Amino acid sequence: MQALLESILDEVRPLIGLGKVADYIPALADVPAQQLGIAVYGNDGAAYCAGDADTLFSVQSISKVFSLVQAIDHGGESIWERLGHEPSGQPFNSMVQLEFERGRPRNPFINAGALVICDINQSRFAVPILSMRDFVRRLSGNPQILVNSVVAESEAQHGARNAAMAYLMKSFGNFHNDVDAVLHSYFNYCALQMSCLDLARAFSFLANEGVSAHSGEQILTARQTKQVNSIMATSGLYDEAGNFAYRVGLPGKSGVGGGIVAVVPGQFTVCVWSPELNAAGNSLAGMKALELLSERIGWSVF
Amino acid sequence: MQALLESILDEVRPLIGLGKVADYIPALADVPAQQLGIAVYGNDGAAYCAGDADTLFSVQSISKVFSLVQAIDHGGESIWERLGHEPSGQPFNSMVQLEFERGRPRNPFINAGALVICDINQSRFAVPILSMRDFVRRLSGNPQILVNSVVAESEAQHGARNAAMAYLMKSFGNFHNDVDAVLHSYFNYCALQMSCLDLARAFSFLANEGVSAHSGEQILTARQTKQVNSIMATSGLYDEAGNFAYRVGLPGKSGVGGGIVAVVPGQFTVCVWSPELNAAGNSLAGMKALELLSERIGWSVF
Amino acid sequence: MQALLESILDEVRPLIGLGKVADYIPALADVPAQQLGIAVYGNDGAAYCAGDADTLFSVQSISKVFSLVQAIDHGGESIWERLGHEPSGQPFNSMVQLEFERGRPRNPFINAGALVICDINQSRFAVPILSMRDFVRRLSGNPQILVNSVVAESEAQHGARNAAMAYLMKSFGNFHNDVDAVLHSYFNYCALQMSCLDLARAFSFLANEGVSAHSGEQILTARQTKQVNSIMATSGLYDEAGNFAYRVGLPGKSGVGGGIVAVVPGQFTVCVWSPELNAAGNSLAGMKALELLSERIGWSVF
Amino acid sequence: MQALLESILDEVRPLIGLGKVADYIPALADVPAQQLGIAVYGNDGAAYCAGDADTLFSVQSISKVFSLVQAIDHGGESIWERLGHEPSGQPFNSMVQLEFERGRPRNPFINAGALVICDINQSRFAVPILSMRDFVRRLSGNPQILVNSVVAESEAQHGARNAAMAYLMKSFGNFHNDVDAVLHSYFNYCALQMSCLDLARAFSFLANEGVSAHSGEQILTARQTKQVNSIMATSGLYDEAGNFAYRVGLPGKSGVGGGIVAVVPGQFTVCVWSPELNAAGNSLAGMKALELLSERIGWSVF
Repeated sequence: MQALLESILDEVRPLIGLGKVADYIPALADVPAQQLGIAVYGNDGAAYCAGDADTLFSVQSISKVFSLVQAIDHGGESIWERLGHEPSGQPFNSMVQLEFERGRPRNPFINAGALVICDINQSRFAVPILSMRDFVRRLSGNPQILVNSVVAESEAQHGARNAAMAYLMKSFGNFHNDVDAVLHSYFNYCALQMSCLDLARAFSFLANEGVSAHSGEQILTARQTKQVNSIMATSGLYDEAGNFAYRVGLPGKSGVGGGIVAVVPGQFTVCVWSPELNAAGNSLAGMKALELLSERIGWSVF
Repeated sequence: MQALLESILDEVRPLIGLGKVADYIPALADVPAQQLGIAVYGNDGAAYCAGDADTLFSVQSISKVFSLVQAIDHGGESIWERLGHEPSGQPFNSMVQLEFERGRPRNPFINAGALVICDINQSRFAVPILSMRDFVRRLSGNPQILVNSVVAESEAQHGARNAAMAYLMKSFGNFHNDVDAVLHSYFNYCALQMSCLDLARAFSFLANEGVSAHSGEQILTARQTKQVNSIMATSGLYDEAGNFAYRVGLPGKSGVGGGIVAVVPGQFTVCVWSPELNAAGNSLAGMKALELLSERIGWSVF
Repeated sequence: MQALLESILDEVRPLIGLGKVADYIPALADVPAQQLGIAVYGNDGAAYCAGDADTLFSVQSISKVFSLVQAIDHGGESIWERLGHEPSGQPFNSMVQLEFERGRPRNPFINAGALVICDINQSRFAVPILSMRDFVRRLSGNPQILVNSVVAESEAQHGARNAAMAYLMKSFGNFHNDVDAVLHSYFNYCALQMSCLDLARAFSFLANEGVSAHSGEQILTARQTKQVNSIMATSGLYDEAGNFAYRVGLPGKSGVGGGIVAVVPGQFTVCVWSPELNAAGNSLAGMKALELLSERIGWSVF
Repeated sequence: MQALLESILDEVRPLIGLGKVADYIPALADVPAQQLGIAVYGNDGAAYCAGDADTLFSVQSISKVFSLVQAIDHGGESIWERLGHEPSGQPFNSMVQLEFERGRPRNPFINAGALVICDINQSRFAVPILSMRDFVRRLSGNPQILVNSVVAESEAQHGARNAAMAYLMKSFGNFHNDVDAVLHSYFNYCALQMSCLDLARAFSFLANEGVSAHSGEQILTARQTKQVNSIMATSGLYDEAGNFAYRVGLPGKSGVGGGIVAVVPGQFTVCVWSPELNAAGNSLAGMKALELLSERIGWSVF
């Protein structure tokens, strides 16, 4: 595995320079573009790392999975009264569908859906940001994980579109807390700093029927685990979920920080990171690395 | 397995009466609603049937998989120049997205995409309907399979929306053959009459790395097989693909005739049929039967 | 004229009971539905009133004309860099078009456009609400005109959709001031309390080449006056601008308080008020009264 | 008037070269771009011409007014059961709104609406093209007017989008005749060849309360005349109806052949022609000429 990871990184490294680092906030635009890392974590507890697998980066939308798991853990099936689990077929931040479907977001991985999930969690936790931080530390087994408050603050300053979505949902009665307070939480979740290894370990319960491979903690039931994976499979990669299924064939979730996490049910989790994005907002080299890995090991669930 | 299938049919039979048989053409509206059948076909060649598993019904949109396989078989990756493999997030027959995306359908399982695939096949076959009929006979191993020409004719009389989509694509240069001729083929494919067992056997190559379990014929490569399955997984059940992944966790394809075929990669195919549909146009009892089956056997790929 | 007005009110009074008073805020829902008034004001300074022409009501969207005139007065043609003067063809508060056209509202009489106009005025006035109040007092010649702060506060509590639009425009760089501050101004403008006679007098400059008939003050140039009238003619009655042109044939502007003002260029202004609205959000009896008046006097500009 | 027309043509002639001749069919693309003509026709029967006022050009969408008048003449108010008279706010050939509003076009001057009008006329006339030709000859007083069949044939070959709209309306039950037959009529109407003077004379009844100034024939009632003018005022210039009202202030109708006809109620009709179009598909020099003319004479109805 170790050799395979190294060789795949070598193979995709030439793609660096062909993508574009997210530049809507300075804190992301300044990330050196040539970084590339990968970590594989097995249900047996074995970890395999290559490249910059220990470098911290901004998890961004990957945090939407953590929020969803928190919400399912508390609210169970009731959360689906407020949003769906269907692919959206629209850009991640589109308001057209949200208006047409009267403030009910299509799924928890588009921004509107993630905001509803954050709104749900906001109602339950006294200090949502601390609850999230502690949850992610527990999931990854790394008590050092922090929020980068510069990133969070910078996101907030460019958060008008997310505010627009939250207010639109509020106008339909599907947003219960103060918009500013929820946005504050949301931007802090996005600004969690984690490494490939952190993320691979944090997602391990999704490959292991709900049980964290390193701590043995039951995070979700086996059935809930399959459900979260199914939503990642149909909606985890923005406008490119179908392409990810076609090329990689695994449940996965990406972030504009350049990270992508994928789950091989029953076996492994994998996290790849490279800051340059393709046109759909997913890590260019990361997509290719996962495609090669899936092909070589025969990981596709299909 | 046999006992399990019987017990699941008993369990879902009370749902009959809560759905609605497709009624846009008389030939479908007249199908007795209380019918219910299921067939499971293993990669080892074993078949398990329960209920009305041998009754013929109209395959309707399930034929879109056959058309896609024909097109991939001839055209390979080049077909994706003319359509995508992303979920649409729109009703199966919406023109909004088609206009916005300049005549390029999102995937081969919405009507517009299926029409493009039929247009591709129309260019290749001298008598496309015969080619399709023979292909399906070969896939299922049943030389008796026929098109119900009454259904085909009836569809054609209600085909204005499909004509509208074809002409819209033509206006964008993405439709090459005569619209009437392609629609004629398309409606005939939809009007294929098959049983649950026929369909389970016909799909068997998709569970078996591209090789038909009964004939040993290689229909697609192993990689192409995974790709077709991935498209079924993200786009196979109209507006309910996400829900099917959430509840059943398998690649699948439904038709308004009430059939649903699902693929358990490496193991089985299954076809369930019950004419009454839910609000999303998928067999109401069929969805539930597949959900129970998937749960009881642990079939979800996620 | 006086007799005509009385007879028209008698003729339309039976419509009361067939419409629906705006009920999204209590302060509007509580307005007695059976009220009906009309005022005609001539360029010669003659005023004709019938029914409840002196009763104060909430001007609501009619205030959008005052805001537009303030903005043109200061900014002239430059304001059209930030919004258009085309009919929208969408509900007055739709976000679809606003997103598609990247935050540039179609015209100043849909909510998004009015918010941009308020944003422009917000940048120019130290205390925008006082500037507006004084402007309207001057236009109408009535120094008693006030904002109903209960209405304004109530609107603010139901203002999530307007906030959503403002933030969406901010995300496209087309909103410069603090969203809350502008919304506060906007809701206060809507909550101006005026009578039919106040409004007919206030609009008189639009029938008189820009010069107020009662004060002689030049409010706009003759050319600007025609332009404002043209925008009312194509976009002044929400989704029913075409129908108003078809039936009445005059530039006009309506509000959900039940008022409608119309301009007969070179001759008169007219304001009719009846709180019950039709499906398009325009006064039901008011529309009919203006239609009859236009027909009987031959007022249509077409 | 004569001198004014000459001077305005001189003033706008420098705009030639800045627009773009319609090029979707060769028969239009080949029209020499430097042509420019104007004709004014008074209710007193006086005609004023300048430039290429006698040159024949393709009336294109201006024919939609003739079709509408034919339909009103036969069907009266009943035609509004099948389409509206509201501005569309969408490109002239958009299908989005048509699908959303279930096959009911917004107005008779977008393509979908014109097709419904042609469908209405198709049901009434034995040979619709001859009926139209004779009607236009009568309206203009010119028995030489012909359809350019090369243009009509060429349009038909590029008519896929119009076919798509007709079939979409058929799918909603709002299209009664054979699609091909109606399209054939429609393209022939568009291909009528008329001069500026022909068109100014043909529209004269719209400036004269429904009575043709040259023949004395009552074409529409005075009320119907105002209604047709109102629809031109809110919807006559594609996406630029608001701008035309703002700049010119008259009811008008344009065509991609470069013609624009405008109506000065009670006084004149005017037709200007220059083949180069602006981004909205309206004659670039023609728009400017009408704006100057309206300003100089004070023609705006507002």
